[in-house]
Amino acid sequence: MMILNKLSKLSSLILCTSFIALTVICYLSAISLLVAQTAKPNVVVIFCDDLGYGDLGGFGHPTIQTPHLDKMAAEGQKWTSFYAAASVCTPSRAGLLTGRLPVRNGMASDKRRVLFPDSDKGLPPDEITIAEMLKPQGYATAAIGKWHLGHLPPYLPTRHGFDTYFGIPYSNDMDAVHGWDIPKIMNPKTEYWNVPLLRDEETIEQPANQTTITKRYTEEAVKFIRANRDQPFFLYLAHSMPHVPLFASQDFSGKSARGLYGDVIEEIDWSAGQIVKTLVAEGLDKNTLVVFTSDNGPWLLFEEQGGSAGLLHQGKGTTWEGGMRVPTIFWWPGKIEPAVINGMGVTLDLLPTIASLADASLPDEHIIDGVDLSPTLFNQQTSPRQDMYFYRGQRIFAYRTGAFKAHFITQLEYVPNAEPAFHNPPLLYNLDHDPGEQYDIAKEHPEIIAKIMNEVEAHRENMVIGEDQLASRIKTDE
Amino acid sequence: MMILNKLSKLSSLILCTSFIALTVICYLSAISLLVAQTAKPNVVVIFCDDLGYGDLGGFGHPTIQTPHLDKMAAEGQKWTSFYAAASVCTPSRAGLLTGRLPVRNGMASDKRRVLFPDSDKGLPPDEITIAEMLKPQGYATAAIGKWHLGHLPPYLPTRHGFDTYFGIPYSNDMDAVHGWDIPKIMNPKTEYWNVPLLRDEETIEQPANQTTITKRYTEEAVKFIRANRDQPFFLYLAHSMPHVPLFASQDFSGKSARGLYGDVIEEIDWSAGQIVKTLVAEGLDKNTLVVFTSDNGPWLLFEEQGGSAGLLHQGKGTTWEGGMRVPTIFWWPGKIEPAVINGMGVTLDLLPTIASLADASLPDEHIIDGVDLSPTLFNQQTSPRQDMYFYRGQRIFAYRTGAFKAHFITQLEYVPNAEPAFHNPPLLYNLDHDPGEQYDIAKEHPEIIAKIMNEVEAHRENMVIGEDQLASRIKTDE
Repeated sequence: MMILNKLSKLSSLILCTSFIALTVICYLSAISLLVAQTAKPNVVVIFCDDLGYGDLGGFGHPTIQTPHLDKMAAEGQKWTSFYAAASVCTPSRAGLLTGRLPVRNGMASDKRRVLFPDSDKGLPPDEITIAEMLKPQGYATAAIGKWHLGHLPPYLPTRHGFDTYFGIPYSNDMDAVHGWDIPKIMNPKTEYWNVPLLRDEETIEQPANQTTITKRYTEEAVKFIRANRDQPFFLYLAHSMPHVPLFASQDFSGKSARGLYGDVIEEIDWSAGQIVKTLVAEGLDKNTLVVFTSDNGPWLLFEEQGGSAGLLHQGKGTTWEGGMRVPTIFWWPGKIEPAVINGMGVTLDLLPTIASLADASLPDEHIIDGVDLSPTLFNQQTSPRQDMYFYRGQRIFAYRTGAFKAHFITQLEYVPNAEPAFHNPPLLYNLDHDPGEQYDIAKEHPEIIAKIMNEVEAHRENMVIGEDQLASRIKTDE
Repeated sequence: MMILNKLSKLSSLILCTSFIALTVICYLSAISLLVAQTAKPNVVVIFCDDLGYGDLGGFGHPTIQTPHLDKMAAEGQKWTSFYAAASVCTPSRAGLLTGRLPVRNGMASDKRRVLFPDSDKGLPPDEITIAEMLKPQGYATAAIGKWHLGHLPPYLPTRHGFDTYFGIPYSNDMDAVHGWDIPKIMNPKTEYWNVPLLRDEETIEQPANQTTITKRYTEEAVKFIRANRDQPFFLYLAHSMPHVPLFASQDFSGKSARGLYGDVIEEIDWSAGQIVKTLVAEGLDKNTLVVFTSDNGPWLLFEEQGGSAGLLHQGKGTTWEGGMRVPTIFWWPGKIEPAVINGMGVTLDLLPTIASLADASLPDEHIIDGVDLSPTLFNQQTSPRQDMYFYRGQRIFAYRTGAFKAHFITQLEYVPNAEPAFHNPPLLYNLDHDPGEQYDIAKEHPEIIAKIMNEVEAHRENMVIGEDQLASRIKTDE
């Protein structure tokens, strides 16, 4: 009887404990569900270097296989009229991270188009990057990859809102041991360049072993995502590739039908696949926006080792479509419905879009040129981005409003004696009908030209050009 | 007791009947399963006119929306190095339907590139089309759309193995009331052309109302599929569009961001969607191969009203890639696994591929130039198609073997005074690395040139050129 009594008490105890445990579990689940529902979304920006509009399978390349990116494009939104903020590296990156036309903050210059290893300036300290904007919202932030907004300490990612940095601070063809030499670039060996690899503000490898660079960026990215699964994060993964000199790791080298350039893109595709896989494995995919894009068009000078702008005209360094329209994907399962978006977008728009997602205040001390793309991303409304300025350095070369793009000045890049050509009246193209900019329709549309001239004039009058940060060089004793 | 007894008998009867019925149902199901498993597959070939490599969303066009074709490409095989048999209409169609280089059967001429309303010849009666090959296998066969292999009775589809025909017998810009006039073509009205619409061998409408032509072809195709759900069928749906003059029906007119050309492609995309929808509704999708392709590249002369070859060079009428590489999809759910195939294929290969599917004998009285693509389609093996001749009329202009393409002669089309340019040594491109044919590598690869010269010489020596059928005209009394 005693035993039975004890057993009965024990079973009551077990029952009671179980009940409490169950209640606690239910309660915790409810909380975690609530947290998941109200948690600020994570943001991953994958930013390639010199990737052309036509370099992904889903954007029409016949021999480069990009199954992971094609799947992301099919599951998310494929943006077909999305632009980089500039046609070369430094201003393009400044534009993405600040949401401001680079001409405003001195990151666009008519003297030097980008920063070099002898530059002593960078993105001004009072500029607010996406990372700086997100920090007060409790975001963990990491920059991985190419920076190119100033390699001296005051300008590094760690001084611009990023908790950590791992990458190469400028272009991978800079600091060349034997000078800038095209045959060496096209038959590259790591030791031809003295490019440093930084962790935060320390050089940890010099020359950086570029062969494994995409792989190592990816490993760092995966590690960062895993480490921050329980708090909102912003990851800026700026690949050094496919900027020449091209390097692919052993797993990808010699694998692509497209040759070395294809190997490099297919490794970037693998990398994007790893990011997605990690997000899914950590249960973060439903709360993470992934954006994939490029800093400018393909560097055509390098022929088979440069990319392709697909049906677009020209490439990197020019204000033709091939120089600035870039293959862009927005992916967020459950939140972004599959669609092809032909509406305009610019990397300038990422900052306001992310601000709205994270409920962060826009940096109100500065003029922001970006617009919030949320209505298009989440409700498939017409893009709020209705026009776009194509600056080269500090001058407006072209302007797009709706489907119409007017070129006032055109200039090829890296062609001997490439002089600017001035167009008055401007060349006019209907980019919806003629994305390849083949058929000038200026004569048929004087009324559109007149409207464009007025808009551009007003923009020019209101523009305050920031002090040139790119022309300045480190002072030496010589 | 009697009642109970009767009830018992009744219930036995019901049970027995049910059992028999069940057995019969099982038996019938088994038979129908067996039939489904062993039934010869249906084949639908959707063949566009002047659709360029870059004109579908999935092949990189930014503003033409082709969700149905993109879905087919994602569910099936997207072939990125697939060629038309020629760069203009008549020889291209002859190649597809006979599996033979058109130079063999007189369908390629140096005097007239295609058939015209004053032509009095056509595809020779002794040539065996896919339809003629399939008839002994019990196939129902229909040709719907543009024919252009001879409009006089002896040459019509009904004389070449097709049970029925509904369509326009030659190009929709022929038989122009006011002569061939570019401004009229670019501002088209049905009455500017006197093109007939035929049912079998009878003219049922003249001029054919082109506005509804894509819609009506589609309705005929759907009707044919439904009517033949219980027997194997071959449907050759050869759209008249997007050959100029462009026409779209009311539902599509003014809808595409790409303008009239986009309207036309989006209607063709809708049409492909209707075919797929019908196959699924009739339970035929698992037993039907659908092939989507084009007869040659875009007609660039027509600027905004011509298509785009995407990243490829040049268009219709030329032996550059833009003239002959065409966007191609093979779709057969459950039988073809999703893949992107960069291996070569040519419309010449459809006849042997379909022969193998239908267990039909190849026409052995003729040399067949096509190869059976089944190993690639169904087992994702390397394409058996390893080389390709680019004829213009009766002369070899270019030759591709593996990734390498050599041009011996190049000639632009529809450009004032476009004369042939002869290349010795030939121009040489690596199409896997450089699909846009930008970077001639002949100097770096004399060994490849030598190999190519040998192969082409052997081919030329063995070629028996068929009697020119295109140069001949209807005799008049004048």
